[in-house]
Amino acid sequence: MSFADHIRACNNFERARVVPLVAGGRRVGWLRRDNAAALARFPRVFAVEGEQACLVAVGDADAVSAAVDEVVDALVAQNHVPKWRNETFDVMPRWGDQPVFRLDRGAVPFFGTRAYGVHLNGYCRDGDGMRLWVGRRAPDKRVAPDKLDNIVAGGIGNGHGIAATLFKEAEEEAAIPAALVERALPVGAVSYRMETELGIRDDVLFVYDLELPADFVPQNRDGEIVDFALMHADSAIERVRDTADFKFNVNLVILNFALRHGLLGVDDPEYLEVASGLHRPLD
Amino acid sequence: MSFADHIRACNNFERARVVPLVAGGRRVGWLRRDNAAALARFPRVFAVEGEQACLVAVGDADAVSAAVDEVVDALVAQNHVPKWRNETFDVMPRWGDQPVFRLDRGAVPFFGTRAYGVHLNGYCRDGDGMRLWVGRRAPDKRVAPDKLDNIVAGGIGNGHGIAATLFKEAEEEAAIPAALVERALPVGAVSYRMETELGIRDDVLFVYDLELPADFVPQNRDGEIVDFALMHADSAIERVRDTADFKFNVNLVILNFALRHGLLGVDDPEYLEVASGLHRPLD
Repeated sequence: MSFADHIRACNNFERARVVPLVAGGRRVGWLRRDNAAALARFPRVFAVEGEQACLVAVGDADAVSAAVDEVVDALVAQNHVPKWRNETFDVMPRWGDQPVFRLDRGAVPFFGTRAYGVHLNGYCRDGDGMRLWVGRRAPDKRVAPDKLDNIVAGGIGNGHGIAATLFKEAEEEAAIPAALVERALPVGAVSYRMETELGIRDDVLFVYDLELPADFVPQNRDGEIVDFALMHADSAIERVRDTADFKFNVNLVILNFALRHGLLGVDDPEYLEVASGLHRPLD
Repeated sequence: MSFADHIRACNNFERARVVPLVAGGRRVGWLRRDNAAALARFPRVFAVEGEQACLVAVGDADAVSAAVDEVVDALVAQNHVPKWRNETFDVMPRWGDQPVFRLDRGAVPFFGTRAYGVHLNGYCRDGDGMRLWVGRRAPDKRVAPDKLDNIVAGGIGNGHGIAATLFKEAEEEAAIPAALVERALPVGAVSYRMETELGIRDDVLFVYDLELPADFVPQNRDGEIVDFALMHADSAIERVRDTADFKFNVNLVILNFALRHGLLGVDDPEYLEVASGLHRPLD
């Protein structure tokens, strides 16, 4: 393994393998060609024609969401989508735009719509060094079971803001009091575009840093994390380089943390690959 | 003006307006088509054919550099290159590769070879806020005269390392003692690709942060900076957004600083454009 291997794994998207999903003349997703073919059976909702698929259901976001939900029902029945997650994400051409419709989280990779999440690096100072709180994901998680994770991470569900998601997840995942979360600093975003078995993950992760008091110990409340460990930051970075122990995208968040805090030396042969590989253009 | 305007200005490169400069089967530069046409007169050094220009001079880096220098001499005489800078940059497909040849800095945009620089954010804590040392470039600078700049910035000349360039420039530009410079943290790289009057700037800037003591005052020694000011970081960021007072690429370095230190709010409408627009793939 290497740092760049993780970056490449998260960016294995190939344009030739997908067609754009277009709504109102703007791209809102990337459909793998097999997924686009499966959509052709729902011509009242999606017009699949040659090199693109167009959303043709009309009405407001509620009406379009209802029409898409019927399609998702059928896709779940046909095993194109594994199952309903009963949590919806807003679909929009760009962050901040009016949502075109809401989509069940389970169907997001099928449609390749952009998903937004929040990741928190919880760290302590330790003399001249730093330690990073790391969680281990529960064995029954559908995505990346048993893998190491940030202390707090979660998707931004429809209607929730970035900061609101941070506070909610910090409480559920690590029992971090709101008064502490308020000190978290927004420090950028990591983005990647990845083909998985299900389709395309086109993800943007808003990244926060939070320096935690030495006596703070996170406690999970929602069953998604089975335990936490306070790892030397340098060990976490080595573990990123040498193993696949961390969830695929958490490798990128930790590399971004390492870079921003001067924990990677400029003489590291992968320095520029890391410094330039954690962000994609917002196309 | 807006944050995104500065990012766009530094990334106005259009692939259709250039041809690759290839050496040993690998791209080492981007030649604007008019510049490629001007190179066609030197067939013993460059073979310009259709959609690419190939370096055909043979020999080691010294021999190739000498052959290219003769071409640069002619290009200066013909006003394709403004003048010799008498400082050479290594030309290589990727950072860390063996240099193919050395090129006078004045000719770098003509050939569109990638140039590497070092920029230092010198800052002080000020209660809960931060202040940033900002220099004003001398009126006789060829590039961006009178514009605001980082406390220290400079190109990485051939044979110089990243850290060595930082120490050298910190001494010449701001008289920062080596014992202080040693505390500077490498915090990533900013990159952009820009067409200028002269050709293509394909730049990678290694970025360092240095917290300076409250009583430190920079002093310029090389005549490149006429004065320094200690600006509230928030004012510097506003000035980036609202004006063209900073040198084009320094806007990007300050935005990167702002982002990493939590000085931009996630609700800023340009947050994601900034978070994703300061880095280019290393193609």
